[in-house]
Amino acid sequence: MSSNKNPRSIILTGDRTTGALHLGHYVGSLRNRVALQHQHDQYVLLADSQALTDNAHDPKKIHRYVVEVALDYLAVGIDPAISTICVQSALPALAELTVLYLNFVTVARLERNPTIKDEIQARGFGRDIPAGFLCYPASQAADITAFKATLVPVGDDQAPIIEQTNEIVRRLNRQTGKALLPEARALIPAIGRLPGVDGKAKMSKSQGDAIPLTASDAEIEAAVRRMYTDPNHLRASDPGQVEGNVVFLYLDAFDDDRDEIASLKERYRQGGVGDMVLKHRLAFVLKTILAPIRERRALLARDRNFVMDILQTGSRKAREITENTKKELLEALGIFRIELGP
Amino acid sequence: MSSNKNPRSIILTGDRTTGALHLGHYVGSLRNRVALQHQHDQYVLLADSQALTDNAHDPKKIHRYVVEVALDYLAVGIDPAISTICVQSALPALAELTVLYLNFVTVARLERNPTIKDEIQARGFGRDIPAGFLCYPASQAADITAFKATLVPVGDDQAPIIEQTNEIVRRLNRQTGKALLPEARALIPAIGRLPGVDGKAKMSKSQGDAIPLTASDAEIEAAVRRMYTDPNHLRASDPGQVEGNVVFLYLDAFDDDRDEIASLKERYRQGGVGDMVLKHRLAFVLKTILAPIRERRALLARDRNFVMDILQTGSRKAREITENTKKELLEALGIFRIELGP
Repeated sequence: MSSNKNPRSIILTGDRTTGALHLGHYVGSLRNRVALQHQHDQYVLLADSQALTDNAHDPKKIHRYVVEVALDYLAVGIDPAISTICVQSALPALAELTVLYLNFVTVARLERNPTIKDEIQARGFGRDIPAGFLCYPASQAADITAFKATLVPVGDDQAPIIEQTNEIVRRLNRQTGKALLPEARALIPAIGRLPGVDGKAKMSKSQGDAIPLTASDAEIEAAVRRMYTDPNHLRASDPGQVEGNVVFLYLDAFDDDRDEIASLKERYRQGGVGDMVLKHRLAFVLKTILAPIRERRALLARDRNFVMDILQTGSRKAREITENTKKELLEALGIFRIELGP
Repeated sequence: MSSNKNPRSIILTGDRTTGALHLGHYVGSLRNRVALQHQHDQYVLLADSQALTDNAHDPKKIHRYVVEVALDYLAVGIDPAISTICVQSALPALAELTVLYLNFVTVARLERNPTIKDEIQARGFGRDIPAGFLCYPASQAADITAFKATLVPVGDDQAPIIEQTNEIVRRLNRQTGKALLPEARALIPAIGRLPGVDGKAKMSKSQGDAIPLTASDAEIEAAVRRMYTDPNHLRASDPGQVEGNVVFLYLDAFDDDRDEIASLKERYRQGGVGDMVLKHRLAFVLKTILAPIRERRALLARDRNFVMDILQTGSRKAREITENTKKELLEALGIFRIELGP
């Protein structure tokens, strides 16, 4: 009777295939996808074309990580029976829509996009930005609209991309006079970015401060040992600082025993808890989470054909959906289409 | 024995489908295509996607002119049995290669392109350039390379686009270590741009000073009557100026009797030839050229299915070629490809 109370959304999510996924992805997105897939229609896009926007010099890396990231997905529990895992480069409609949408957005508007501005600075591109990088909001708009996604889980730094997508959606719907494309809503996770082991900025695939999903017990322990705590907390009996303490940030993200963590923080602040106690606890928690993921992943990695089958099945389904949206949109715009058949 | 002396080239040529073709196109490109098709493998692209880069607000116009321009092609004698006439939007590989090439060119380089700079100014875009317009050299590079064209007939104002294409070609060939894509050569016609009837700049589809290929005898006569000559040549007996005299420019372009034109110029300079004599001659020449084109066009226009069949056949052939180039290039770059079949 109340089936409309919580209607299913269409979710588009995914990752640029630029490296192995790590704990930052796990807490920021993967864990949520595993939960969301039961309540919504979820499409998980391996964004290999977009990965090329700043990796054109090394396409082989992007190639390799398509399968590696797919393995990460399956290992954490993204279920191909209920989530559609698909490959961006296998969906020509996404490129066609990107080229189309570039006509509906100005260069000045792309340059004003805060996400693009920040990332251009972070990558040190200066004036030598690859054009594809400046244009990637149009590519993301193509991805989102091609699936008619209504919910897009993103980090808070990516929210302006959703806004720009919705501007294109409104412009197209106004021009066609039909609400053909839905506006999308950004779904920003409760837990923000996980800092790197060294406490600097966010955990990053490229900066070597990340704990990959494939980390062994020994690697987890080593990473946790290196973890930044409170540099003034020299003896267990000293009062310690919880804020900015990476070990506590990780415990907040991964340890389900909230009461015990609250109590540990309290005692740490007063003095009486050594860093090693915290680190042991965290290493145990992380090993407990990662061990089954690692084992499932190793098993899956033995059967590459199984993974390829999943990518083919998902991409075929995604191709049908994205081709259909393209067709509807071109017809609504009155754009010439010639039917060539297969 | 000398079969390699003048080897066949692959020609890519075409028009943005933004309006009816006119005498400027006839003299600048159409006439050459009719000749070139016998010696080379010629692909004629109806560039409807590129037409949208500055016509996104009016796709229906672009739609209409796909068929209209195809009719112009057939009417002037571009022979679908030896030239391949195809539609850009029916070739997804062109959009996919465009998106790929955008990663191999910087925003700064696109902004430095003289053709783009001039056209941005001519269209009064300022900072509000549609991104698609700034990116169109990448789209043209996709078109040219997808057909592996070696010869591209262009106006001299478009030559920088070929240069930019070749930069992308060299970059890709260097990265793949294979000379997979050929460099293209610009083929700039001997006769430059035809001025408009009023003598201002080039004949333009949009400025109402063009004589369309469909012009009736009466319309040709009226246009020639309006044509700019020498404002100081008031009486037939006055000496007249040949330079900048639009009627002579048109006679140079369309009248095959060179000796007679040379003699007319001589006598016009000395005084003794009235403008009406020249204009009668020109109107006669133009009517002789356009009458059979107009009649053939009217006949073809009655059978829209016949034209659509030609566009389908040509686009199918072009799709095979462009998909094949894309496949070769992605493989050479080591970019992941998932085979989905039809």
